[in-house]
Amino acid sequence: MLGKCLDNVREKSPLVHNITNYVTVNDVANAILAAGGSPIMADEPSDAEEITQICNALNINIGTLNSRTIESMFAAGRKASELGHALLLDPVGAGASSLRTDTALKLMHEIKFDVIRGNASEIKTLALGSGTTHGVDADKADAVSDENLAFMAGFVRDFARSTGAVIALTGAIDLVADAEKCYAIRNGRPEMGRITGTGCMLSGIMAGFVAANPGNVLEACASSVCMMGLAGEIGYSHLQAHEGNSSYRNRIIDAIYNMTGEILDGGAKYEIIR
Amino acid sequence: MLGKCLDNVREKSPLVHNITNYVTVNDVANAILAAGGSPIMADEPSDAEEITQICNALNINIGTLNSRTIESMFAAGRKASELGHALLLDPVGAGASSLRTDTALKLMHEIKFDVIRGNASEIKTLALGSGTTHGVDADKADAVSDENLAFMAGFVRDFARSTGAVIALTGAIDLVADAEKCYAIRNGRPEMGRITGTGCMLSGIMAGFVAANPGNVLEACASSVCMMGLAGEIGYSHLQAHEGNSSYRNRIIDAIYNMTGEILDGGAKYEIIR
Amino acid sequence: MLGKCLDNVREKSPLVHNITNYVTVNDVANAILAAGGSPIMADEPSDAEEITQICNALNINIGTLNSRTIESMFAAGRKASELGHALLLDPVGAGASSLRTDTALKLMHEIKFDVIRGNASEIKTLALGSGTTHGVDADKADAVSDENLAFMAGFVRDFARSTGAVIALTGAIDLVADAEKCYAIRNGRPEMGRITGTGCMLSGIMAGFVAANPGNVLEACASSVCMMGLAGEIGYSHLQAHEGNSSYRNRIIDAIYNMTGEILDGGAKYEIIR
Repeated sequence: MLGKCLDNVREKSPLVHNITNYVTVNDVANAILAAGGSPIMADEPSDAEEITQICNALNINIGTLNSRTIESMFAAGRKASELGHALLLDPVGAGASSLRTDTALKLMHEIKFDVIRGNASEIKTLALGSGTTHGVDADKADAVSDENLAFMAGFVRDFARSTGAVIALTGAIDLVADAEKCYAIRNGRPEMGRITGTGCMLSGIMAGFVAANPGNVLEACASSVCMMGLAGEIGYSHLQAHEGNSSYRNRIIDAIYNMTGEILDGGAKYEIIR
Repeated sequence: MLGKCLDNVREKSPLVHNITNYVTVNDVANAILAAGGSPIMADEPSDAEEITQICNALNINIGTLNSRTIESMFAAGRKASELGHALLLDPVGAGASSLRTDTALKLMHEIKFDVIRGNASEIKTLALGSGTTHGVDADKADAVSDENLAFMAGFVRDFARSTGAVIALTGAIDLVADAEKCYAIRNGRPEMGRITGTGCMLSGIMAGFVAANPGNVLEACASSVCMMGLAGEIGYSHLQAHEGNSSYRNRIIDAIYNMTGEILDGGAKYEIIR
Repeated sequence: MLGKCLDNVREKSPLVHNITNYVTVNDVANAILAAGGSPIMADEPSDAEEITQICNALNINIGTLNSRTIESMFAAGRKASELGHALLLDPVGAGASSLRTDTALKLMHEIKFDVIRGNASEIKTLALGSGTTHGVDADKADAVSDENLAFMAGFVRDFARSTGAVIALTGAIDLVADAEKCYAIRNGRPEMGRITGTGCMLSGIMAGFVAANPGNVLEACASSVCMMGLAGEIGYSHLQAHEGNSSYRNRIIDAIYNMTGEILDGGAKYEIIR
């Protein structure tokens, strides 16, 4: 089932517009291409709005936001919403600064997102109005664990209900939930945290998955999360002697490139919590 | 002959100023270094104009353009033109939005470019005033094929005549033409389309080739196109088990780094259409 | 001793705020992660100032500066200074344009930096008020050599005395000095100059080293310079057939990732000049 979501991306090759940070943008583009989508980036307000019109999905990532790109996020977001495109918010660093927290909250208020994807601290910040975000990485105190799994699954389902969006809270255990159902996903490796941009890449890919699987947002999101984690496992297994985080980045994108629906179905590790 | 153009780049190490998009800028810089040139980037108007003065070439790429960088493109473009530097325009996404189309057309109107390099949809947009650009990739309907080769060669020669620039229309078959002669180049691999930035890298490299081969613009451009395609073939042949588009990107730049004039002359696949 | 400085970075995992150019920013982030730190980037003035507050170090790199990011550099710089954070200036291209030279000099005037790191031409420009910077690479006439070593060591010590900052002048021979002592470091390989961003990566890493080794700025800087050079030597030794500058970049970051204090102490090549 999850594999079918990937097959749909490869078949439909959704065009994904990304208003995203300049730190990881190249990896986001190559990751989207690896998954079978097609990336485009525009962040001047008038251009962003017009480029969005020819796309199937919009991925808004607030890392390295500025006054110009914030205006573009709203302009493109409204247009994408009007056109019924797949719409994803990645609230990078929400909780770490008021500009980031406020921008994410305003975007959620004005635009109806299909998905909000962030780490535990970012999602808690948006849900609870305050956070303990340590830079762009989640605070350890916020992590999902076997001990708090049922509680956290309830928390993300509640947040999904109140926002009407699928919530993807990613970390050692990933939670992907709508108001009814929560996938708890155990793919991935801790070493992925030593690479910049695995979250950003996932957001770009996920926007394409949602676009290619209309009416099936929850499963599309869960599929992309499993795929990213599995690519992390496969890429790790292909590391050669003396390789580190820079080569690992390449090997993860390569593993996405070589992923099939069958491999994904065979390697996905998840349970569903209701 | 084409190999000699590369040798000249390695010997003269032209300094190439790039006002280019932030998606692929790092690969553009490493590709220019791999080819033997030296890259520099500046996009604040006053800085861009002054930095251009110490350079030998200017590569203007309109992907992720904004109001500030557009101003820089005009300021640096006029200065480079005044100083007789090699001047290249890469109209990324012309046809996909009015800001991109208009900016490219205005740049062409105000500044005398030595070369305009784009995909089929972008070049058609600039030549015909309207386009069917699908994002930043060429529309399939616009592709150069064996069936329309003579017609398309005439089209790019005509556009070269009317603009006074060498036109490099790149795709499965690449066409590089001035008003009299058109190179039809068959180097490269389809998998290069699954990497972001091969076109941007080529533009940066090509600007350096033009600077290092004064009075020989057409051949310099054809040489850089053959080299990029050949690097795509060589890089592909070096892919190891489990590698995908991210490693392929590295292997292409590596192949440029290890390219010699002799390898280029041995591997270039082209015919000349008059 | 130098190895201990690296061990401290891995133990404390300093959060490094980087206001840096978009050409090499991704490699800077992965290099900081490889060394054991944690990177974050913000360059809208209000955001940059607030993000700086949660960090331990600030790395200001003026490559691709613009009016918005310059404002952020001053805002974040003043805040970091107030809070006693580790503060590093990388004057990319100082001497190549008046905006770059003036911005670097104004930053030095208004903000007390712990370290200034640049190539020979950039450092000379800041020390003497004029330079011969050829783009973003040092002019050959400015290079440190065995012939001028004693003179250049005196020059950087003098500049360190007048600024109160540690000066790191990097090139074939690297000089790292305070007012009393100058490390002359001979790690590294000439091929590192064929990769974009080795200097930028070093600056990001160095800011983390200074933060993790309070009260020991000179040694922390010398340690990071030795480590970068040694990673260049180790990465080079791991290059496979047909690899070039793009793979070399990955292998250098990988070598940083796999570096230990013990490897560093075994491989560091330096003498101290008083």
